[in-house]
Amino acid sequence: LTIQNEAQLKEIVDRLVYQTEVTDMHTHLFSPDFGDLNLWGVDELLIYHYLISETFRWTEQDYASFWEMSKTEQADWVWKKLFVEHSPISEAARGVITIFNRLGLDTSSRNLNDYRAQWAQKSAEQQVDDVMAAAKVKKIVMTNDPFDDKERAVWTEKQGNQDSRFYAALRVDPIVNQWDQSVSKLNELGYDVSAEWETRTIEETRRFLSEWIERMDALYLAISMPGDFSYPSEDHRSRMIDDVIIPVCQDKGIPFGLMIGVKRQVNPQLRLAGDMSMRSNIEAVQNLCNRYPDQKFLVTMLSRENQHELTVLARKFRNLMVFGCWWFLHIESMVEEMTRFRLELLGTSFIPQHSDCRVFEQLVYKWEHSRKILANVLNEKYATLMQEGWVLTEAEIQRDVEDMLDVNFWRFLGKA
Amino acid sequence: LTIQNEAQLKEIVDRLVYQTEVTDMHTHLFSPDFGDLNLWGVDELLIYHYLISETFRWTEQDYASFWEMSKTEQADWVWKKLFVEHSPISEAARGVITIFNRLGLDTSSRNLNDYRAQWAQKSAEQQVDDVMAAAKVKKIVMTNDPFDDKERAVWTEKQGNQDSRFYAALRVDPIVNQWDQSVSKLNELGYDVSAEWETRTIEETRRFLSEWIERMDALYLAISMPGDFSYPSEDHRSRMIDDVIIPVCQDKGIPFGLMIGVKRQVNPQLRLAGDMSMRSNIEAVQNLCNRYPDQKFLVTMLSRENQHELTVLARKFRNLMVFGCWWFLHIESMVEEMTRFRLELLGTSFIPQHSDCRVFEQLVYKWEHSRKILANVLNEKYATLMQEGWVLTEAEIQRDVEDMLDVNFWRFLGKA
Amino acid sequence: LTIQNEAQLKEIVDRLVYQTEVTDMHTHLFSPDFGDLNLWGVDELLIYHYLISETFRWTEQDYASFWEMSKTEQADWVWKKLFVEHSPISEAARGVITIFNRLGLDTSSRNLNDYRAQWAQKSAEQQVDDVMAAAKVKKIVMTNDPFDDKERAVWTEKQGNQDSRFYAALRVDPIVNQWDQSVSKLNELGYDVSAEWETRTIEETRRFLSEWIERMDALYLAISMPGDFSYPSEDHRSRMIDDVIIPVCQDKGIPFGLMIGVKRQVNPQLRLAGDMSMRSNIEAVQNLCNRYPDQKFLVTMLSRENQHELTVLARKFRNLMVFGCWWFLHIESMVEEMTRFRLELLGTSFIPQHSDCRVFEQLVYKWEHSRKILANVLNEKYATLMQEGWVLTEAEIQRDVEDMLDVNFWRFLGKA
Ligand SMILES: [Mg+2]
Ligand SMILES: [Zn+2]
Ligand SMILES: [Zn+2]
Ligand SMILES: [Zn+2]
Repeated sequence: LTIQNEAQLKEIVDRLVYQTEVTDMHTHLFSPDFGDLNLWGVDELLIYHYLISETFRWTEQDYASFWEMSKTEQADWVWKKLFVEHSPISEAARGVITIFNRLGLDTSSRNLNDYRAQWAQKSAEQQVDDVMAAAKVKKIVMTNDPFDDKERAVWTEKQGNQDSRFYAALRVDPIVNQWDQSVSKLNELGYDVSAEWETRTIEETRRFLSEWIERMDALYLAISMPGDFSYPSEDHRSRMIDDVIIPVCQDKGIPFGLMIGVKRQVNPQLRLAGDMSMRSNIEAVQNLCNRYPDQKFLVTMLSRENQHELTVLARKFRNLMVFGCWWFLHIESMVEEMTRFRLELLGTSFIPQHSDCRVFEQLVYKWEHSRKILANVLNEKYATLMQEGWVLTEAEIQRDVEDMLDVNFWRFLGKA
Repeated sequence: LTIQNEAQLKEIVDRLVYQTEVTDMHTHLFSPDFGDLNLWGVDELLIYHYLISETFRWTEQDYASFWEMSKTEQADWVWKKLFVEHSPISEAARGVITIFNRLGLDTSSRNLNDYRAQWAQKSAEQQVDDVMAAAKVKKIVMTNDPFDDKERAVWTEKQGNQDSRFYAALRVDPIVNQWDQSVSKLNELGYDVSAEWETRTIEETRRFLSEWIERMDALYLAISMPGDFSYPSEDHRSRMIDDVIIPVCQDKGIPFGLMIGVKRQVNPQLRLAGDMSMRSNIEAVQNLCNRYPDQKFLVTMLSRENQHELTVLARKFRNLMVFGCWWFLHIESMVEEMTRFRLELLGTSFIPQHSDCRVFEQLVYKWEHSRKILANVLNEKYATLMQEGWVLTEAEIQRDVEDMLDVNFWRFLGKA
Repeated sequence: LTIQNEAQLKEIVDRLVYQTEVTDMHTHLFSPDFGDLNLWGVDELLIYHYLISETFRWTEQDYASFWEMSKTEQADWVWKKLFVEHSPISEAARGVITIFNRLGLDTSSRNLNDYRAQWAQKSAEQQVDDVMAAAKVKKIVMTNDPFDDKERAVWTEKQGNQDSRFYAALRVDPIVNQWDQSVSKLNELGYDVSAEWETRTIEETRRFLSEWIERMDALYLAISMPGDFSYPSEDHRSRMIDDVIIPVCQDKGIPFGLMIGVKRQVNPQLRLAGDMSMRSNIEAVQNLCNRYPDQKFLVTMLSRENQHELTVLARKFRNLMVFGCWWFLHIESMVEEMTRFRLELLGTSFIPQHSDCRVFEQLVYKWEHSRKILANVLNEKYATLMQEGWVLTEAEIQRDVEDMLDVNFWRFLGKA
């Protein structure tokens, strides 16, 4: 059954892009098995660090007094500044309204306590089910840090993740970026490492990663890198990558995921909201892909000015999978521009989005907003093909959309 | 009274964006009190340096012969090259047509001498009134340089600015960027400074700024910085900022405005038209905002490749107010892209535009073109909110638009 | 006859942009006089290096086995991966469909062997005629390398190019970028040069260029420069430019064309598809334009992040002609953004596109896709002028379009 005209095309593309169930390949979400670590609810939504940084622009209130408030007070304050005293037209503020609406709340009321009352009727488990259904997300990859005491206890003292919709990714930031603090932590955890870079330390760090990959059944190793990340280099980072990360990834047959371009804590008073973006040197990625052609790399970058060249680099290295529009790029205009040139340079062979959610209900808006853009761009691209007489079927469009929203990730992992 | 549908929304947003009276927070305009310094009229419009550089691309005429011509001859030549021999579709050329049309001239005639005849009937005072009415600009911030002999005389020998629609900003470029030449000038003006950086010099330079801030009632200190501006640094610039600029700003309670990213006189033969843009290191701004959290900074940058990160930085520092689309960025496509991601990252908490006008009638086109883009982007953003059930009122939209076109500036100054 | 409304405007702009015959000022095409060097046909189209790099993203097949296949097998494999197993929505894949359709093939059949059969009925000469007619390209500038044995033989042993629709550009990459290997080659060709940079070597290299310019009747000298090109510099490149390239260009009265921003062979296994883009320092171009104000420079750059500043630089130097959207920028979204800001900053005084074709039929899609964007942007720009009462004629639009697609190039060469 071939598609006959652009109206039919649009109906099909929109339907498939909006309905196809997603694998969200990088989030900061947790399954209900992780208890309190699973953040959800209206107050968590309002004190999302994206909104906190925007709120402070409208006030001279000192930072300390904000952090001293209760969550509810903080949420009230954000609501007042960003939703009452100004219109919520930033990406993150608009997202809250999208969530409320799609979860059935009356967005016209602006009554925060009503919203809280409705949330109070939900259990965490129920909300996870409802949100995944509303957002049409079927699989969620968490970010899992064995150095976090609270989280580690879930894996070691409880049964870890038991929810088959959730998958682990093992975060390796501490051992790569803060080795000095990590040595004693690894010692505590029973690994015989020392500050010096010697055989025993290398073996034990590998053992640490290997055991945790197995325990978590981790899909990939994940790290966020500062904007001045360079590779290869005469530093701890390069040694750890060459001697530990890559050998373990190769041994386990999993990718190494890098999120590159953060400048940490340019304003520490904003805490989690205090990080900045920074242009990076794409050569680090080029050198990794080139030196390890059999190793797969999942890469996203934070600076707008790295996006075009990163996409070009993916044309050079098939072991490089470009993914998502990260953080300050997860806004309508940037998602659109990146999606366009990625499609133009790579066809459908990339992962257009990840949500990076920290609060469960954010899945609703992050995916809703991204699907809208993807549908628009795809509609345009397919339409130009049809205008040249190319005949499309719904099955082909379904295949393409599933590739981008789900299958490309699993195929890259060798698990499709 | 809530807005019922998108047609009504569009009518309201367009009306408010086009009708709201603007504070133009950075210009090179002067009130009529400044006599000849107040540039206006059709010939001045045509010999605007933006147009001169475009004109030279269509000719091999030598530069010297152009500069030797009278203003009228120069204007004739620009008109011939850019409006007769080619279509005026560049931003600056198009702007002239917008001005002519909005001031009631017959743009279909293309008769330059007719236009001159109509202008000849106006006085400077009348034209200032008419243009401000046509452009819906209510307040204009000048750029004021006490080192300019002609201008200084207006402040010292006449009564300075007496027109309540005009405000001063004190330009500090000479003492920061050309200290060697400034020492003798300061001496002439009665300040006991020397080339060495010593206590007496610091005190006297502070006195110079303080006295001129008071004389001008300056709203802020203003400077344009080269693209290689770094801070902190072991150079005169950092010393002047730390020892003089910031202490004086703090004392007077006014912001420090920085326009960063100029490369001066890459082609000196083009004179004012010979400057270039240059990518800058955003860390200089980060370091200023971080070191002086109680000092406010008004910042715009000239390189396209600094815009996204500058907007992100404003999420980190509320003492940083991003403003305008400067010079080579004051073109339709760049204003649109910057306005979009600024709204997405900052909500309405920024200053979307300043005119940078040098010739009075330019207010008409610079604001007209910018309003059109702002209205379009706002319409889209509000519409997405309405689609999610958010209910908007005209009063809210009026508040948002007034914030962006007027109030944000004054609130940042503590004068709203 | 003036244009009365926007519908009429659109009809005229579209017609003129689509019908105006183009001078394609940089290609890798050859006239039929060059025999096998003239690449054409369906298999050549499918094994275009743009498509090879995209195809490898969908397979783990080793590179060597691909290069061992016959052209037909390679083409079959690309067709299967990019056109059957996935939808051809990348710019380069979509281009193939545009070509097929405009050359009268049934794009709905997807029958590669049918397409081959239809191509088999064509001679090279016939196809060159048909494609130039279909693409409305009247003049084609080749890239000509006297160091290539096969090509040189055409110039020295046969009669060189005899087809008046084709023009030569002399490629100088070897003597600028690979001097060591070039010395012996020049010796072989009868030029008395040595590795050291001395008078005799300079004279003989000038003689080499001069003789080949004359033999080819070359329109300009052409080079592609790495992303780290700097000028002036204490390297061979600067010496060759100052002592040979510029003096010869001046003597012959021809421009020097630079394509800046390549990073060669980041993945050598992809061969021609293995090059990358790299941000360059615009100062090299500024310094060239400034040092040699009487020398003309045709410049394009490969990094997106150089485009805005390169356009600004063209406002400073009329001896700088910006041209084309190169390689990874020759995609819909980038062509649109670059065309927009170039028009806004330069009016019509630039060369919006070159095709860079390697396979003859690519002229069809490269120009078709670019004309569509140019028409859209021009329609918008002219419409805003009409809205301000500016009255346009078809003759004026024809003049503007001819300037951009044809005349600007020849005028810059002094041959219009
Ligand atoms: Mg854009
Ligand atoms: Zn994350
Ligand atoms: Zn200015
Ligand atoms: Zn080329």
